[in-house]
Amino acid sequence: MTRGRFITLEGGEGAGKSTQAKRLAETLRRRGLEVIETREPGGADGAERLRDVLLDAPKEWWDPVGEALLLAAARRNHLQHTIRPALDRGAWVICDRFADSTMAYQGHGHGVPEGTLETLYDVAAGPFGPDLTLILDVPAETGLARAASRGTVNRFEALDRAFHLRVHLGFHDIAAREPERCMLIDALADQDTVASRVLAAVDARIAEWAADADAVDGSQPVVE
Amino acid sequence: MTRGRFITLEGGEGAGKSTQAKRLAETLRRRGLEVIETREPGGADGAERLRDVLLDAPKEWWDPVGEALLLAAARRNHLQHTIRPALDRGAWVICDRFADSTMAYQGHGHGVPEGTLETLYDVAAGPFGPDLTLILDVPAETGLARAASRGTVNRFEALDRAFHLRVHLGFHDIAAREPERCMLIDALADQDTVASRVLAAVDARIAEWAADADAVDGSQPVVE
Ligand SMILES: Nc1ncnc2c1ncn2[C@@H]1O[C@H](COP(=O)(O)OP(=O)(O)OP(=O)(O)O)[C@@H](O)[C@H]1O
Ligand SMILES: Nc1ncnc2c1ncn2[C@@H]1O[C@H](COP(=O)(O)OP(=O)(O)OP(=O)(O)O)[C@@H](O)[C@H]1O
Ligand SMILES: [Mg+2]
Ligand SMILES: [Mg+2]
Repeated sequence: MTRGRFITLEGGEGAGKSTQAKRLAETLRRRGLEVIETREPGGADGAERLRDVLLDAPKEWWDPVGEALLLAAARRNHLQHTIRPALDRGAWVICDRFADSTMAYQGHGHGVPEGTLETLYDVAAGPFGPDLTLILDVPAETGLARAASRGTVNRFEALDRAFHLRVHLGFHDIAAREPERCMLIDALADQDTVASRVLAAVDARIAEWAADADAVDGSQPVVE
Repeated sequence: MTRGRFITLEGGEGAGKSTQAKRLAETLRRRGLEVIETREPGGADGAERLRDVLLDAPKEWWDPVGEALLLAAARRNHLQHTIRPALDRGAWVICDRFADSTMAYQGHGHGVPEGTLETLYDVAAGPFGPDLTLILDVPAETGLARAASRGTVNRFEALDRAFHLRVHLGFHDIAAREPERCMLIDALADQDTVASRVLAAVDARIAEWAADADAVDGSQPVVE
């Protein structure tokens, strides 16, 4: 049994992460894969409780470092109870936001030092991360306008324009620094067009994984 | 206005922390001090929500590192919303459990590395800690028997004897390593006797603080 692949969708408010996560999961399922869709913060019982404690709270309860601590606790629970068990049984996991959102929002957006966030990630998750991260890129204004059309305004949407511009630049920084893992997807197009860009990116990566596996198989002939 | 003093009460299950915290607070109030009584996990709105998420949860939701992350998030909230504001306005704070419980339970009891717990403390609280810590010392069995007489069994009371012995040794280790801050109090006596031991320890420390303050005043004459 091969281990499943862990794919995260990232980007600012209203970039289309939830829409595209669902579409990608459906497409991969039609190919016969077992795929689970999950999200952060949340994705497991304990983590969903923490999502409520974070998102329903009066703004002043949690400062950015407090948010980062809560997100780390939730992420550990999510990894232990949902993500790792699924990958281990061969399922693919598609996750709507993950650690890059913490770096972009609490780090670039709110100024929590990168080292602090890396330390918390390490405590929560250890040396484990996504196989592929798709960063959906739309101008902050476009994303906020899309999100606003849903009616409710959450803890982060309520922050000012400068914050969302820093988050947007943060995602670009992450993509530039980890090109092996991250693909920046232009998401300023209709949903079908974005879905085919997402799928093209995933298929490109699947081809690389297959090539890597062949290389490994070729160089390490099985002796029985 | 002088800043208030931050006193923590520590020890294993049923050592008498809650009983003695209340008695000490009452005694200091009778002397005219403003004293707040608080506890961990909890002590502020966000932190009390996390206390519920931790203590009401099925055992397997939170492994020891997950507990430590939750406790760190709760501690930051507690410090920001309850402890620091009280100290700043001159009130004394008496806290029923604090960071030493995390080191004793999650560290010594469950094996989370000391460095991980120190890192999390530093993220949550920075260079800030109790002025005085009273560690109430009773044999683990005695404490568990006292606690059991209350009827309910919590997440930690339910753990095995070996765990509680490690916690007990952990508190001794903490007391030995930080003699400036910690005082180990023999709490295997009736409540009145323990209360006078607690008060004697606090008064000894108050006398030292006064001597320190005099020394500072003497060496730095105010020039106006
Ligand atoms: N390509 C697109 N063009 C226009 N609207 C879109 C597009 N993709 C999604 N939308 C719409 O924009 C809104 C936000 O999309 P979606 O919820 O997928 O974004 P998100 O990135 O998950 O947002 P959030 O960060 O708030 O969770 C939804 O109403 C959705 O239908
Ligand atoms: N010195 C004492 N001798 C005998 N019983 C005591 C003494 N001090 C407290 N008790 C009783 O033991 C029980 C536990 O005391 P208390 O709740 O103060 O301990 P605790 O350290 O706060 O416990 P926990 O760790 O469970 O919060 C209570 O029923 C209390 O009345
Ligand atoms: Mg979404
Ligand atoms: Mg108690």
